[in-house]
Amino acid sequence: MAATTAAIAGIGQTEFAKVIERPEVTLACEAAAAALADAGLAPADVDAMVRFDLETTQDIELARNLGVENLRFFADTPHGGGGGCATLGIAAAAVETGRADVVLCWRSRKRGSGRRPWATNDGAIAGEKQYWVPFGLARPVDQVAMMARRYMHEYGLTEVQLGHVACTIRAHAQRNPAATMTKDMDVATYLASRFVSEPLRVPDCCLESDGAVAVVVTSLERARDLPQAPVVLVSTAMGSGPQTVGMANYFGPSITTSPAAACATSLWERTDRRPADVDCAQLYDAFTPLVVQSLEEYGFCERGEGGVWAEAGELAWPSGRLPVNTSGGGLSEAYLHGFNLISEGVRQVRGTSTSQVPGASTVLVTSGNGVPTSAVLLGSDR
Amino acid sequence: MAATTAAIAGIGQTEFAKVIERPEVTLACEAAAAALADAGLAPADVDAMVRFDLETTQDIELARNLGVENLRFFADTPHGGGGGCATLGIAAAAVETGRADVVLCWRSRKRGSGRRPWATNDGAIAGEKQYWVPFGLARPVDQVAMMARRYMHEYGLTEVQLGHVACTIRAHAQRNPAATMTKDMDVATYLASRFVSEPLRVPDCCLESDGAVAVVVTSLERARDLPQAPVVLVSTAMGSGPQTVGMANYFGPSITTSPAAACATSLWERTDRRPADVDCAQLYDAFTPLVVQSLEEYGFCERGEGGVWAEAGELAWPSGRLPVNTSGGGLSEAYLHGFNLISEGVRQVRGTSTSQVPGASTVLVTSGNGVPTSAVLLGSDR
Repeated sequence: MAATTAAIAGIGQTEFAKVIERPEVTLACEAAAAALADAGLAPADVDAMVRFDLETTQDIELARNLGVENLRFFADTPHGGGGGCATLGIAAAAVETGRADVVLCWRSRKRGSGRRPWATNDGAIAGEKQYWVPFGLARPVDQVAMMARRYMHEYGLTEVQLGHVACTIRAHAQRNPAATMTKDMDVATYLASRFVSEPLRVPDCCLESDGAVAVVVTSLERARDLPQAPVVLVSTAMGSGPQTVGMANYFGPSITTSPAAACATSLWERTDRRPADVDCAQLYDAFTPLVVQSLEEYGFCERGEGGVWAEAGELAWPSGRLPVNTSGGGLSEAYLHGFNLISEGVRQVRGTSTSQVPGASTVLVTSGNGVPTSAVLLGSDR
Repeated sequence: MAATTAAIAGIGQTEFAKVIERPEVTLACEAAAAALADAGLAPADVDAMVRFDLETTQDIELARNLGVENLRFFADTPHGGGGGCATLGIAAAAVETGRADVVLCWRSRKRGSGRRPWATNDGAIAGEKQYWVPFGLARPVDQVAMMARRYMHEYGLTEVQLGHVACTIRAHAQRNPAATMTKDMDVATYLASRFVSEPLRVPDCCLESDGAVAVVVTSLERARDLPQAPVVLVSTAMGSGPQTVGMANYFGPSITTSPAAACATSLWERTDRRPADVDCAQLYDAFTPLVVQSLEEYGFCERGEGGVWAEAGELAWPSGRLPVNTSGGGLSEAYLHGFNLISEGVRQVRGTSTSQVPGASTVLVTSGNGVPTSAVLLGSDR
């Protein structure tokens, strides 16, 4: 193990909306500048960047625009929404080994006003998509719906339970001024909404959003000299599991086991803290069944109990055992490939969430678990 | 600094050729399987992969085909040929911090039989390419030619000196059975060859090749228990420098200073070894002027002396002060985005090159320096 620990020293974001007119590079610059200001650092302090490989903004483009003088470490994360927390894991490895001092990680995305990649599936289908797209599993929602149907069959997950996931997270969004979807919703409203891909309805699906979020990672030692209380990267992990195939992950030993199971094993191996120590969780919620699956695969409850927890109110702030997605997450705040879950995790440890868990000192943040995935355990510095 | 050191335990490759019929994923599997066999490891030992983001083979695709059970670390490197040694730097950070045990890095590429990306420039020019492609700097050779012309003006670099770079590396290829370009060439032949983009001629340009190379990185401790003598990652580095713009890097303080200058600073900061300790170098040679520039920027000689060194025979095996690209490199062995320079560096430290420097114990390998770049200092375990 390395002698140094990495920590988050700053977070920043643009507004979130269905449509923002400014280009993605501008949003990336704004979020990065805000994160650096939050950290009390200047662009000249930055010496590394780690980004999603889907990002349209190059690292050197952001560096030029901000005034970063040299990147002595750079990396991308593959696997779309699965690579969110992986940016922090790679940044931590760079900081812990002295390969970087100040790492900027970000996601800037105009999916609200921009193109949906699956809308281009009318042309030739290349790569592994040839194995499922021609059979009607064209959109992510179709791919997750098939997994959810199997989940219902194996574990008794119900539509009402999925409704409770969506409604609980919506209620959290209603306290967050940055959230873009704050309409009242109860389970009856949920059940009356239209199916997108049975058994998944409109409120089971994340928003399509424009916006950007950035995070500054540095050493805990340096973070302690900066304005914000450091948020320690207690443990970072990634996992693919066996025989993984994109989002249509039906080829492994179990259709209902996601890469998060393998990621969770690695995550808990790198810390003495346990699921019972986690004060709240920001769980990747591109679709509600993924939240249920994460509750179980990260070890908060047994297989088949995730939906029961949701229905029993265990995910709700402030009364639940494990408040989940306290900013409204991808379902109701904004969907930025899960990167806004990271900034909400930081706010919880800082004590500044609009649905603050009192004294939160251990927060789990996870990334997309329909694909090779990643996670981070955030902690207070004490 | 981390307690563990990373090392290369295995290398593997396919044949190199202008045209190989098998697809890139097959070549990737073959090279990876060969590297694992060389390391005495099984696919089930692999728990991490780091690849070029340009790679057409996904990590999970390679994992499925090889039989890798879980990836607990994954990353991509941006910046095309600049990201070659960066795969090793990221792998080393993962190993040194316990995030991975056995990392597979590879490049599989059919550029010989496949498409040249700049041949598609007839459509809309997006991103930063809009700043140079419409002005005739369409191909990489055009972009480097403009830099080379300025180099000649500032430092007195001559065409004859560039010819010596090409001819020296060709002579090395002639001893390497894996090399694809072994025709006799002297400086007169070189000077009689046609210009591709003045002042650069055909032999100033790398080959267009099909093939794949893979490398296995693990901890030095584990490598010591494996069949091959470990090749230690003594220092790894990346660098972008200021105001960097792709390959047409004319916007910084100096047109003739490449990102390698910043990379070299970081490289030497992480080791006590100095340029004078380096027994031979595998320098990124997509074009001959890049070799001259690297000799100077990595500190082997002063500005303007790189060409003089080439003409004086200092790059030649066995008589030169610093034998360069002892396998024939990208100019005469094969051009796989510089990844074959890494395997040749490993062979030198193992003592198995076809142009072996006696007792080589410190070898520099560099990646593409027309873009944000990376480098690694390889060393013997003693």
